[in-house]
Amino acid sequence: MRDDPWLTEEQQLVWRAFLRMSGQLNDTIERDLQQTGGMPHAYYLILAMLSESPTRSLRMNQLAEAVRSSQSRVSHAVARLEASGWVRRIPAPGDRRGQVAELTESGYQRLLELAPGHAEVVRSTMFDPLTPQQLENFRDICATILAAMADRGITSEYPPAPPC
Amino acid sequence: MRDDPWLTEEQQLVWRAFLRMSGQLNDTIERDLQQTGGMPHAYYLILAMLSESPTRSLRMNQLAEAVRSSQSRVSHAVARLEASGWVRRIPAPGDRRGQVAELTESGYQRLLELAPGHAEVVRSTMFDPLTPQQLENFRDICATILAAMADRGITSEYPPAPPC
Repeated sequence: MRDDPWLTEEQQLVWRAFLRMSGQLNDTIERDLQQTGGMPHAYYLILAMLSESPTRSLRMNQLAEAVRSSQSRVSHAVARLEASGWVRRIPAPGDRRGQVAELTESGYQRLLELAPGHAEVVRSTMFDPLTPQQLENFRDICATILAAMADRGITSEYPPAPPC
Repeated sequence: MRDDPWLTEEQQLVWRAFLRMSGQLNDTIERDLQQTGGMPHAYYLILAMLSESPTRSLRMNQLAEAVRSSQSRVSHAVARLEASGWVRRIPAPGDRRGQVAELTESGYQRLLELAPGHAEVVRSTMFDPLTPQQLENFRDICATILAAMADRGITSEYPPAPPC
């Protein structure tokens, strides 16, 4: 730790603004998905991550990593999604104890129904207010912080790069 | 909804980078506070929010709003913090059914012990990599998104502006 661990006044301002902005954004997304889809954002992310896998399926531990959650929480969510008919659990090939979560066709259709509204919420809340220059700056800032994290070994699978 | 709700390619890149950056930052903060303080970030925030109140106390509903959580989740957290001796629950003045959470002196000392390490994690992960120009741009971007949210009635109490 450095001698002076504290944030400067400007860093403190940005930190609080970032927390508020990302918190309010999360709340807005959560509320919208609950209202329009009757599911929390975490469930939507599970459907979205499964849909981006070439086999529309992921092992439970991969899925937990992909949505940044614990295995127990993901197991609970997948059981709920299975009860709705959107996901099914099947034994993992070559691993008697492992399980794979697979997106069903009706789960895929549900995702397609919800995706435009979700994209609209993200776009209107976060991106419409920004000028092209601000968007470019934002991209640069995220990339800089992510590169510094990677240098320190902080990486993750989620979210994957957008499909080409 | 507009005719085309989808994100542009650049917006999609920034959105994924933002999700990954903020997700990894949350994970880093969570891991650090669990390791050094034996508590989740949500508990740390409760102590921090109480410490910033002039009376070092908040009604349970104010506290839930301040940490962007449900009342039931906050009640559970406060009960755990009370068991550690860091918070106490007292009846709300003039409201027989209400409760106030109050930071104890030992809770305040615990917060003071953890705060420098937490600030160091935030500073080194998020701010050290940024140039002064990037920091200024970041501030401008957060302010722009927050102002647009406020125009649409999206506001919150948390986090409060930094103390003067």
